[in-house]
Amino acid sequence: MTGFVSFVSSGPGDPELLTVKAVNRLAQADVVLYDDLSSGPILDLARPGADLISVGKRAGRPSAKQDHVNQLLLDYARSGARVVRLKSGDAGIFGRLEEETTTLDTGAIPYEIIPGVTAASATAAAAHIPLTRRLTARRVQFLTGADVTGSLPQDLNWAALADPGATTVIYMGKRTFPALAAELIARGLAPETPALLAHGVSTPAQTVERFTIASLAAHLADATSTTPAVILYGPLAP
Amino acid sequence: MTGFVSFVSSGPGDPELLTVKAVNRLAQADVVLYDDLSSGPILDLARPGADLISVGKRAGRPSAKQDHVNQLLLDYARSGARVVRLKSGDAGIFGRLEEETTTLDTGAIPYEIIPGVTAASATAAAAHIPLTRRLTARRVQFLTGADVTGSLPQDLNWAALADPGATTVIYMGKRTFPALAAELIARGLAPETPALLAHGVSTPAQTVERFTIASLAAHLADATSTTPAVILYGPLAP
Repeated sequence: MTGFVSFVSSGPGDPELLTVKAVNRLAQADVVLYDDLSSGPILDLARPGADLISVGKRAGRPSAKQDHVNQLLLDYARSGARVVRLKSGDAGIFGRLEEETTTLDTGAIPYEIIPGVTAASATAAAAHIPLTRRLTARRVQFLTGADVTGSLPQDLNWAALADPGATTVIYMGKRTFPALAAELIARGLAPETPALLAHGVSTPAQTVERFTIASLAAHLADATSTTPAVILYGPLAP
Repeated sequence: MTGFVSFVSSGPGDPELLTVKAVNRLAQADVVLYDDLSSGPILDLARPGADLISVGKRAGRPSAKQDHVNQLLLDYARSGARVVRLKSGDAGIFGRLEEETTTLDTGAIPYEIIPGVTAASATAAAAHIPLTRRLTARRVQFLTGADVTGSLPQDLNWAALADPGATTVIYMGKRTFPALAAELIARGLAPETPALLAHGVSTPAQTVERFTIASLAAHLADATSTTPAVILYGPLAP
């Protein structure tokens, strides 16, 4: 008797931005494994009586708990349960999905991945801008602003990131943005390139603030807040 | 009496991959303006009695009809209607959204943008891969493979595209991929870099085929099919 694991993308925060398929899987779940970032009203969509288990993993941090999450997935699936593994945003984008799917592949546990709305799309929508534009923003790229130690990742592709013809969206990059922006400007990206700083997109706490890359770097240089944020820069940021 | 326009992202094709908010807006619509790419079962979600209007715009083609779409948006909104402008995938990604929002801004028509699941996320989910991975795929980028004439866009950022540490997803790029791949390989990207070719992702017609960038270029060199496809290459493509 083998269960089934659904990796369910929970979107940017608003329960209405879950897909219909995600809602259906939550409504049928025997157990829901969730991270801190995807908790809240979305868990109210789980089947009454489902086990709701916080696995306390946080985006952007090393986690001693990954082995524990993997073992829970295996154990619940082998008990025959319909398991929902809730992932914030789109599960495939900075969701550390592979550690868990590899475990299931190894254990021959069947699973599905339900894609969702990533924070970049929700941020652009909230700001009333697109992520791409003919001729002037023909490429869009997402990166994480923090490596496992919380520092700016090494070996960034600066030619890609300092491209004035792309929209760039940085996840988990508030702390490292001043260093990133200094390097972008040193590589020739205009200091007045428009930038957005967004918190709590699609939730009642949503804020979207407009900057340039230079002024955002200055703003964040003194910031102490560690609230998760999305940073967007490029020709389309208003 | 002013209406309201909802730009509704319809996702990759499966009606279950619409967001709950998208479904709600369709269910309340007085009029739905849709492109060829987003028709089909998704339109069944529109309120019975809503006007369903094909505006016949196609991704990747120049459109003499954009002015007509803009005028319809203005006219319906000014009549007080709840207008849904349906966009395939995520409205902000290669959706030519800005032409239409600019018209509404100019006309002082209120509107919202409802983000959705973009084809890249759905393709990765269907292939059971993530779009990012710590250390080896820390950046993900989307681009369109065809400019307004159907050719490979000029002035591509080759340093960005030939990066072995990024996942690249190409929308509307089937015809130009052989030329793109030749240039990537000339710039040092390994010919054996894994690649995926996906058609009809999330629909009953879904196919996901595995290649390398070299073998996919060879495969597509003789192809005559113009069915919309998504191409993905990078370290994570299996």
